[in-house]
Amino acid sequence: SINSERLLKRLQDLGRIGLDNDNKRTRLAASDADKAGRDRLIVWMKEDGLEVEIDRIGNIFGIWYSTENRNEEPILLGSHIDTVINAGMYDGCYGVLSGLEVINTLQKKGVKPSRPIAVAAFTNEEGVRYQPDMMGSLVYAGGLSVEDALKTVGSDGTLLGEELERIGYAGTKEPGFLKPYAYIELHIEQGPILDKEGISIGAVENLQGISWQRITIEGIANHAGTTPIVMRRDAGLAAARVITYLRDRANASNGQTVATVGTISFKPNAVNVVPSLATFTVDLRNPNEQRLQEEEQALANYLKELAASEEVSISSEQLARFSPVSFDENIVKLIEQAASKLELHSKRMTSGAGHDAQMMARICPSAMIFVPSIEGISHNPKEATNDSDLIAGANVLLDVVNNLAGN
Amino acid sequence: SINSERLLKRLQDLGRIGLDNDNKRTRLAASDADKAGRDRLIVWMKEDGLEVEIDRIGNIFGIWYSTENRNEEPILLGSHIDTVINAGMYDGCYGVLSGLEVINTLQKKGVKPSRPIAVAAFTNEEGVRYQPDMMGSLVYAGGLSVEDALKTVGSDGTLLGEELERIGYAGTKEPGFLKPYAYIELHIEQGPILDKEGISIGAVENLQGISWQRITIEGIANHAGTTPIVMRRDAGLAAARVITYLRDRANASNGQTVATVGTISFKPNAVNVVPSLATFTVDLRNPNEQRLQEEEQALANYLKELAASEEVSISSEQLARFSPVSFDENIVKLIEQAASKLELHSKRMTSGAGHDAQMMARICPSAMIFVPSIEGISHNPKEATNDSDLIAGANVLLDVVNNLAGN
Ligand SMILES: NC(=O)NCCC(=O)O
Ligand SMILES: NC(=O)NCCC(=O)O
Repeated sequence: SINSERLLKRLQDLGRIGLDNDNKRTRLAASDADKAGRDRLIVWMKEDGLEVEIDRIGNIFGIWYSTENRNEEPILLGSHIDTVINAGMYDGCYGVLSGLEVINTLQKKGVKPSRPIAVAAFTNEEGVRYQPDMMGSLVYAGGLSVEDALKTVGSDGTLLGEELERIGYAGTKEPGFLKPYAYIELHIEQGPILDKEGISIGAVENLQGISWQRITIEGIANHAGTTPIVMRRDAGLAAARVITYLRDRANASNGQTVATVGTISFKPNAVNVVPSLATFTVDLRNPNEQRLQEEEQALANYLKELAASEEVSISSEQLARFSPVSFDENIVKLIEQAASKLELHSKRMTSGAGHDAQMMARICPSAMIFVPSIEGISHNPKEATNDSDLIAGANVLLDVVNNLAGN
Repeated sequence: SINSERLLKRLQDLGRIGLDNDNKRTRLAASDADKAGRDRLIVWMKEDGLEVEIDRIGNIFGIWYSTENRNEEPILLGSHIDTVINAGMYDGCYGVLSGLEVINTLQKKGVKPSRPIAVAAFTNEEGVRYQPDMMGSLVYAGGLSVEDALKTVGSDGTLLGEELERIGYAGTKEPGFLKPYAYIELHIEQGPILDKEGISIGAVENLQGISWQRITIEGIANHAGTTPIVMRRDAGLAAARVITYLRDRANASNGQTVATVGTISFKPNAVNVVPSLATFTVDLRNPNEQRLQEEEQALANYLKELAASEEVSISSEQLARFSPVSFDENIVKLIEQAASKLELHSKRMTSGAGHDAQMMARICPSAMIFVPSIEGISHNPKEATNDSDLIAGANVLLDVVNNLAGN
């Protein structure tokens, strides 16, 4: 089994990178804090003798080759190390660091695997600074050209390509340069199911569809004291109506649709001025493509009605759109078997979050292993998983890799 | 009658100060742009031989004394020259510059008024950067201590006192140093009534009550994809519910209550994170104190219910609170008489906006003259008034001053 002490210590070490003065952890993609995290990761990869490669979108690969297996397709493990704003410590990092433990354990045992084993840390999985999310793996899998991706303008007005150059992670390898034999991503669930049901391993068989839009509502600025309600074209009120509409739809979906408005801004943003402009994002998800399309259509229809009734103009821009994904049945079974060998309860489940595995599934057999998130909290500094679950998940990953490598 | 050419030209000149690269006009209180506007105003005051005084809260006074009337209480005209964000050209400036025209006209005619005539430009009337609004006149009238006012922290984190020092407008006169005989404020209506009814002069007999609050809602940040709707504590959704609630109340008030949410921000403000914090302002107004209190109480009750139903915590802070004000009946009559002498239609009306006159009414007989705002648009660069109405309003002011000065 894996070296749990090293894994837990490294999670803490990486988790300290990117803390601000208020002790909030933020390592947005291609930021200075992301660079510091990447630098640390590469030191660790080299300590275990891995060959480190960086591709043009900044994805980092640490590859364990032997002379005998150099021409074989590698088994790829991994996830991401970028974070949201004021993030937890486990999201992404757990999968990357566990990958290193799997390799180190096999190395220590003197195993000579039939194929290379590699660990990837994909660029900009979170999608907070640059949209879409899962961008590094999307580019790697050929779903977005590297040129277009590098031209992405961030929420702070920066260009991803320039920021990658600036932090020294605009690599030279062409995305896709390693064709994986399989991709397995170990991750915290980030939701409440495993924790609630007291199950330590999720065998993730699919992942729900994700639709991100940025909606802009244009009204007319006017005086808050003198403008009769009936004469207002209040962009902020219209935005609030969209937010409550989305919640009503989600409530009516029997727990299937989730909808979130996570960002908003008004212009001119003054206490006594009716907002002339409201801009906000919508994150819509459903495990069923047909249903997700229905939600998108319902929103579009509602925006049309609202534009007419509030006399505002409304436009929307798609920031990300990913259909639901099914994972590789064979690997999902290997996960269940590994759990049962280790006497762990497991459960087949759907991922509510987007993950790099959903992109890698386009180019190789892929699946995911989940471990419980205490109280389902994630994208929050309180994100936590019991050490025993972290260790169990890494050992399941080790067993699946052993199996796939034919050790 | 007044020199309309000079008035219209100066409105344009002052209106060009504070334009940004996008041609948006913003002269927030005690900013660099406000300083530039103040400097220009003082040049104009000195051109007409006025004595310029600045008080400790930065209010500017240009006083026309004669040797004979130096010991009399002055007739004070004026308004403010600070603006909202992306403002129009007339709000405030019209009253200040018309005051200068009234004095200049009397000077040119060789009138020797029985009392000094003075023009004030009060600090921070808009209240966008520092709350409460009408701060300069409030301090002048003794409703807020100058020490407390100077300690006000702005929406940008600055201290008003430090900013006034920085721009060179922390004067030495004690607020209240001139005890006015009367205060008359000429202003654009900023609302649609006069324009709609084709009436050129509003004789403003009262002003509605204003209540400003900042509301902070605390929820729990969580993952937008994995957190079931029923487990969310979504501060942003709760904020949206407050916005639509306020609109429903206003709609039910028979055109009496107006309610505006002009500013908002979410934290962490990321597309895939349920907001943990929402902060927004509420601007509530009603011409009747009793009704305004009912609206405040209804909102407070709603916030309590909402905190329980959405499992969030909600706090609110009063940023400004002014009861409705009645103006001086005698001056209102003089305004009506002046309009009728000039063959202008006039109408008694209520001010929907807050004005410095409502503070000055605490220390001397005060009233306001309104002129039409085309389509009722204000706090917007499209704010406009026909030249003929601007000139008519200034001539009404001239006549009222002549009357009060016993010329
Ligand atoms: N795992 C994760 O938080 N990914 C970010 C993309 C998403 O919002 O689901
Ligand atoms: N006249 C004016 O716009 N004053 C600002 C205070 C208010 O919001 O009413």
